Amino acid sequence: MGKLQALSLYADFRKDLNYIEKELERSVDSASPIIRQASLQLLHAGGKRIRPIFVLLASEFGPHSLEDITKVAVSLELVHMASLVHDDVIDNSDMRRGLETVKAKWDNRIAMYAGDYIFSRALHSIGEIELPAVHQLLAKTMLEICEGEIIQIEHQRVANQTIRDYLRRIKRKTALLLSSSCELGALASGADATNVRKLSRFGYFAGMSFQITDDILDITSTDKELGKPAGSDLLNGHLTLPILYVKDDPEFLPYMERAFAQTLTETERSAMLSYICNSGAIEKAEAVSDLYLQKALKEISGLPDSKAKKAFRQIAAFIGQRKY
Amino acid sequence: MGKLQALSLYADFRKDLNYIEKELERSVDSASPIIRQASLQLLHAGGKRIRPIFVLLASEFGPHSLEDITKVAVSLELVHMASLVHDDVIDNSDMRRGLETVKAKWDNRIAMYAGDYIFSRALHSIGEIELPAVHQLLAKTMLEICEGEIIQIEHQRVANQTIRDYLRRIKRKTALLLSSSCELGALASGADATNVRKLSRFGYFAGMSFQITDDILDITSTDKELGKPAGSDLLNGHLTLPILYVKDDPEFLPYMERAFAQTLTETERSAMLSYICNSGAIEKAEAVSDLYLQKALKEISGLPDSKAKKAFRQIAAFIGQRKY
Repeated sequence: MGKLQALSLYADFRKDLNYIEKELERSVDSASPIIRQASLQLLHAGGKRIRPIFVLLASEFGPHSLEDITKVAVSLELVHMASLVHDDVIDNSDMRRGLETVKAKWDNRIAMYAGDYIFSRALHSIGEIELPAVHQLLAKTMLEICEGEIIQIEHQRVANQTIRDYLRRIKRKTALLLSSSCELGALASGADATNVRKLSRFGYFAGMSFQITDDILDITSTDKELGKPAGSDLLNGHLTLPILYVKDDPEFLPYMERAFAQTLTETERSAMLSYICNSGAIEKAEAVSDLYLQKALKEISGLPDSKAKKAFRQIAAFIGQRKY
Repeated sequence: MGKLQALSLYADFRKDLNYIEKELERSVDSASPIIRQASLQLLHAGGKRIRPIFVLLASEFGPHSLEDITKVAVSLELVHMASLVHDDVIDNSDMRRGLETVKAKWDNRIAMYAGDYIFSRALHSIGEIELPAVHQLLAKTMLEICEGEIIQIEHQRVANQTIRDYLRRIKRKTALLLSSSCELGALASGADATNVRKLSRFGYFAGMSFQITDDILDITSTDKELGKPAGSDLLNGHLTLPILYVKDDPEFLPYMERAFAQTLTETERSAMLSYICNSGAIEKAEAVSDLYLQKALKEISGLPDSKAKKAFRQIAAFIGQRKY
């Protein structure tokens, strides 16, 4: 979310976010130098801290204690980090956010156990919250995310799939953890049940819109903007929403087959990206993303006015406009 | 622990153990056929269910509810199963307990995510227990186990290590989860603090003794008894207690170097195993194992008399005698 940091919400919540950042750093300390280095590198590689932000903002709708909220925020960011480490093992990725991945710098075995360690740290952080509902929701979220990861593998390079398959996949891949960030922040803060529900749904809809936009940008951005080849999703066998709109065109089929077989030349990759951009698929996908964004905004509109509500609106607007 | 099932404790606690087994099976259900199959295969491959047994027996020292205890028992067995799945990814093992591993049958990616899924199921099961101390202890246990796994990799094929390094490693590898099984069973049952502590220490000492025996058997058993080549630990670069007693013998050094380099012939492997068996190293390791066993029995002796206490004694005696 690159420029997200420029939004005014960061001025309003800077102090709390800095506190969370410090605790995040403290949380990954370890007796093993490899784990410590690997975790700190991941942490310093940046990331948008969107999950901590959602936790923090959602907590503003209840009589929260910053200490408890920080434990929840740290936990959710660590769950996210752990899944990134495991995804890098899976994807054979050697670079993430311009830095060597844990897997590349050490090896697959270290990356797998470092991911397990970071997961455990996430549990340790949230373990101090004395609300059973919080633990149950986190466990349920992690379960569905893991199922989603395996279903994503099952769907890889499978041409015969529907938009519904895709939506279910991105729900588990992205929207669930954002929804749970809002819900857990609200629960831990003692917000009332109606607002907890609205915040949870906001996180879900915003997450769906965010991921669809991400999948569009994988096609419409330059290699440089992305830090990886445009069209990577398809090259890795993942059928995203724009692709689903174009995949049955007889002219597109040869591109897809060659992408799956990893025999696509650079010229063909450019031609394929142009084909998608000129097919109307991008506009259709943007319309779906926008639909989710409207739903997100509708949930927000029912919340009491506050700086946090304003910040959630800014984030929604940002998701709707982002071009990188 | 093969013949453990023949002990009379199984008659006294059969009904409860069967209930736990049924819930264990129910717990790994999933929308993904691959996850379901992989988990059920692991479950049916057997295993000793030593963690559920420890949870159940420890819970007898408080006014427990079987329903809560079952959630804890299921959770700990799942943590153990998840770590087996991840260890198979690490070890490149294609067989476990005579069956193909998840990794061999599907692939490394599936195995990693299946492990994550089973971990999440473990959290889900214990998530319903409304005692913060339970969640905190489980998180702490998992943290130390993960750190232990990375330290084990750091120590792999490193000749310069001490008995203390080894003891720390097996603590994290085996003893901690058994100690926590006892402690969590006792905590969840509402046992008093003194007994919780004794049970926790019993699990720890019994676990240390058990793992040392396991490491001895890796050298003294036949390939057939083990279901894998005798001496596998050393072939995989792990220095166990008997090896540590013999590793500085000038006559042994060439064996170790060739084992680490994976250039050991079958004849040399037999000669190496004989060398260790005739060096006195086995007897020294047995003495350490026995010392831990005595400590375990001492903890037990302080507990109130009951069927569970008798069963713990039987298990301790079994660990002391096992030859397979």
